[in-house]
Amino acid sequence: MKKISIFDSTLRDGAQGEGVSFSVEDKLAVVEYLDQLGVDYIEGGNPTSNPKDCEFFERVADLELKNAKVVSFTSTHKVGADPAKDPSLTAVLESKTEHVSVFGKSWDMHVTDILNATLEQNLEIICSTVDYLTKNGKTVFYDAEHFYDGYKANPEYAMQTLEAALKGGAKVLVLCDTNGACFPFEIEQITTEVVKRFPNVEIGIHTHNDIGMAVANAISAVRCGVTQVQGTFGGFGERCGNMDLCVLIPNLQLKLGYKCIPAENMELLTSTAKSIAEAANIGLDPRTPYVGSSAFAHKAGMHSDAVIKKSISYEHISPEAVGNSRRVLMSEVAGRSAIMLALKQVDPTIDKNSPITKQILEKMKELEHNGYEFEGAEGSLEMLIAKELGKFTPHFDLGKFSVVVNEPADELSSMAMIKICVDGEYETTAAEGDGPVNALDLAVRRALGVFYPEIKKMSLIDYKVRVLDSKGGTAAKVRVLITSSNGKRAWRTVGVSTDIISASWKALIDSIEYYLGVVNKK
Amino acid sequence: MKKISIFDSTLRDGAQGEGVSFSVEDKLAVVEYLDQLGVDYIEGGNPTSNPKDCEFFERVADLELKNAKVVSFTSTHKVGADPAKDPSLTAVLESKTEHVSVFGKSWDMHVTDILNATLEQNLEIICSTVDYLTKNGKTVFYDAEHFYDGYKANPEYAMQTLEAALKGGAKVLVLCDTNGACFPFEIEQITTEVVKRFPNVEIGIHTHNDIGMAVANAISAVRCGVTQVQGTFGGFGERCGNMDLCVLIPNLQLKLGYKCIPAENMELLTSTAKSIAEAANIGLDPRTPYVGSSAFAHKAGMHSDAVIKKSISYEHISPEAVGNSRRVLMSEVAGRSAIMLALKQVDPTIDKNSPITKQILEKMKELEHNGYEFEGAEGSLEMLIAKELGKFTPHFDLGKFSVVVNEPADELSSMAMIKICVDGEYETTAAEGDGPVNALDLAVRRALGVFYPEIKKMSLIDYKVRVLDSKGGTAAKVRVLITSSNGKRAWRTVGVSTDIISASWKALIDSIEYYLGVVNKK
Repeated sequence: MKKISIFDSTLRDGAQGEGVSFSVEDKLAVVEYLDQLGVDYIEGGNPTSNPKDCEFFERVADLELKNAKVVSFTSTHKVGADPAKDPSLTAVLESKTEHVSVFGKSWDMHVTDILNATLEQNLEIICSTVDYLTKNGKTVFYDAEHFYDGYKANPEYAMQTLEAALKGGAKVLVLCDTNGACFPFEIEQITTEVVKRFPNVEIGIHTHNDIGMAVANAISAVRCGVTQVQGTFGGFGERCGNMDLCVLIPNLQLKLGYKCIPAENMELLTSTAKSIAEAANIGLDPRTPYVGSSAFAHKAGMHSDAVIKKSISYEHISPEAVGNSRRVLMSEVAGRSAIMLALKQVDPTIDKNSPITKQILEKMKELEHNGYEFEGAEGSLEMLIAKELGKFTPHFDLGKFSVVVNEPADELSSMAMIKICVDGEYETTAAEGDGPVNALDLAVRRALGVFYPEIKKMSLIDYKVRVLDSKGGTAAKVRVLITSSNGKRAWRTVGVSTDIISASWKALIDSIEYYLGVVNKK
Repeated sequence: MKKISIFDSTLRDGAQGEGVSFSVEDKLAVVEYLDQLGVDYIEGGNPTSNPKDCEFFERVADLELKNAKVVSFTSTHKVGADPAKDPSLTAVLESKTEHVSVFGKSWDMHVTDILNATLEQNLEIICSTVDYLTKNGKTVFYDAEHFYDGYKANPEYAMQTLEAALKGGAKVLVLCDTNGACFPFEIEQITTEVVKRFPNVEIGIHTHNDIGMAVANAISAVRCGVTQVQGTFGGFGERCGNMDLCVLIPNLQLKLGYKCIPAENMELLTSTAKSIAEAANIGLDPRTPYVGSSAFAHKAGMHSDAVIKKSISYEHISPEAVGNSRRVLMSEVAGRSAIMLALKQVDPTIDKNSPITKQILEKMKELEHNGYEFEGAEGSLEMLIAKELGKFTPHFDLGKFSVVVNEPADELSSMAMIKICVDGEYETTAAEGDGPVNALDLAVRRALGVFYPEIKKMSLIDYKVRVLDSKGGTAAKVRVLITSSNGKRAWRTVGVSTDIISASWKALIDSIEYYLGVVNKK
């Protein structure tokens, strides 16, 4: 199997995505996730761009990495300047990384109109920057920014920029589709020309997703002979983002016969992607191929039935191969056999023909008719099953609550009073909140904390509201979906009512009961 | 320019995406958005799958569409059954759509292992289903499910399924990559074979995104001669979703020289995508190529500077070409032309360069930064403009309100007390309701009815809630979108707050003021 080097730029180009932000701690954690997975290179940032990156490079040098090399990033030095006096290049030399990415201009328009330099001057600074770093012991990857657009405008000049880098001693020539608007057939044609011209040089590819082609383009380039692929985890990056390594790696390794990471690490892919997306403060798109939470989620009844019979009928790989898992969504279009999966979680002895199965199905149907949806609310579904099986003992009972909302208001508009009962003992308390649901949430946690201090470890991480039969206007039924987490595991619960407070309350108590009864017990 | 038919399946295959759900009102609105944009076909659903779809097909028949044809969806009938007695086919005939999509099995494994039929029986039911519908006056599109996987397993049999559909009278043969795991080079090779075998037949393509290739694959097929492309808006659909039409349409039309929709409608693309994603209750991924809110958002300083000097330096097209706008993050710069339409509604003398235009833009930007979204909330936008123009006189002022929610409760959990003022006269009243928002809605109407009896003619017909920054849990900001109607005309308003009661109240008063000040005056 041909080896393709994986170059991750999540911490550099990925950090340029809207909403993405990493603390130094986050960056160090990401380096460890990526190293564990087995990528070859991790671009950590530009050592002079901000103090955060300086601190990062100092601290990352102390990590003992098993697989990956950390790479620093810089641009070509200024026209006419002495590279030895360039603060960016000095910082790069001080950053202690063996590898450096240098980006330069390969599109003639960028040289003349953005850099305000002559075409000749640009070739000089490319060569001189690479040469200076190489002579100082660095291994240099040359990022030919806008290479493909440059080639379309002036093919000979674009090639000359690569030659200048090579003359300076660059080890890899990385062809960038910076504006992300090339099609695979263009990448194929242009990359073939580059490979022909530089037959013994390692070529890399760096693509963006502005027309939705980033992964397809990277694959096109690999099929032309490129051996280094640059991208980010989750596809984060400027505008529509960079090429998504979560998608590229399994495409190359599981389907096209290339080797990217150690085979035994492929099942770390999903958890790596999720951990990095959490660190990026942005979350992973559920529809991300291979690693998204919906990637193997089946909704239509016909699909669910078939996939249970024979997984390849609607799954292109086994989800476990990338550390993901199948989810059969409970919905109005879902079939019966779907529910068996959840049932077996609670009691493995139950089968399709047990009388209790029928009873649970009846109950589910009744609830669904009333607006419940167990799609993506496995917490509530398991609670429902446990209740029907007589396996549920509540950890508390509600005495009563009142919530009051005033307008005009101080900063916090709402106040909730609550009385709960645990083993015959009562606790009454109140809390102020940002809106009635928040006040209620705070009040019930305060009251329960007296009996179950572990409740402090659980928190709500997502809260969604869906108005059903919306013709009912403000008297419409609403469905509330809550995601809670204890930092290690997330679970989802649902509540339905014409009253949003009551719907939220139902989802909230399911969430708490599931935590106390299931998550915390494991 | 070669015409490519656009077949939208958002309401059918898109509805099978996790978290996607449409009310009948939503579905009808989506049909109107798509028709306005100028797509050719809109697949509405399966007329027998649930009562919602039945109602939809009844009501959609009354819409006067300019561009699109509505298509109903069904599968082949059962082996050995009489098509005239098949309830699905009967429902399709009753659905009044001229066009029908029929899906059948093209992968031999699916025939034998999932359908439990013989290969010969499957060919018979394909032919007989298409034949029955064709003879009853329908134009049939045959969806060859899993065609590509089927071709890989047994090319001759896959071809025979197409022949069976053609023998039955199918007008278009749609090749599906149902499991979404083909690469463009495979699509190219197999599609070329189909086009060779059926040189005078219209061929379609339907792809899924399980390995991130859906759009690239559709383009590959078009380049082989396919003339109908199926996908969904926003790429919603089973698992990783369907091919995203928001990305495909501009790729084909702005870059590759094909015609998909009327050229003058291309600038409606972004608003159409956003409105549909709102209706789907899922929101548009900000990184969606062309139409996402980040698609032309620049974050790195170097990018922002260059793009202002020369837009093509980091933008592959002008964002305005698809109705999107450039955003320079940290220093938000919104497009002006976008809101000129609404401005002209309120005051036709205003132009793009009036100082007031700038002032209104500033105000809008500030509100959008706080979570407002005026896409699909034209009532609130016009109210905002009227306020900035000094053309707004409120019909009433709020003194104060209090809402109380109790649990356990009688049938109605909530009570609202309100005091309003009209021309110096006060009215204080209260109402009980099904939830706090309903109680408040009833109370304000009761109070206002004393001064404005015409308010009885207005009612709320839709109420939607979207949780923003949902990581905030129950303290997250929410956006409430209300649709009101007087039976003749509908209008939409929006409110944002961390408190759902307060957000609803803002949307509610906008809705009432817009009725009293604009709708009722016309």
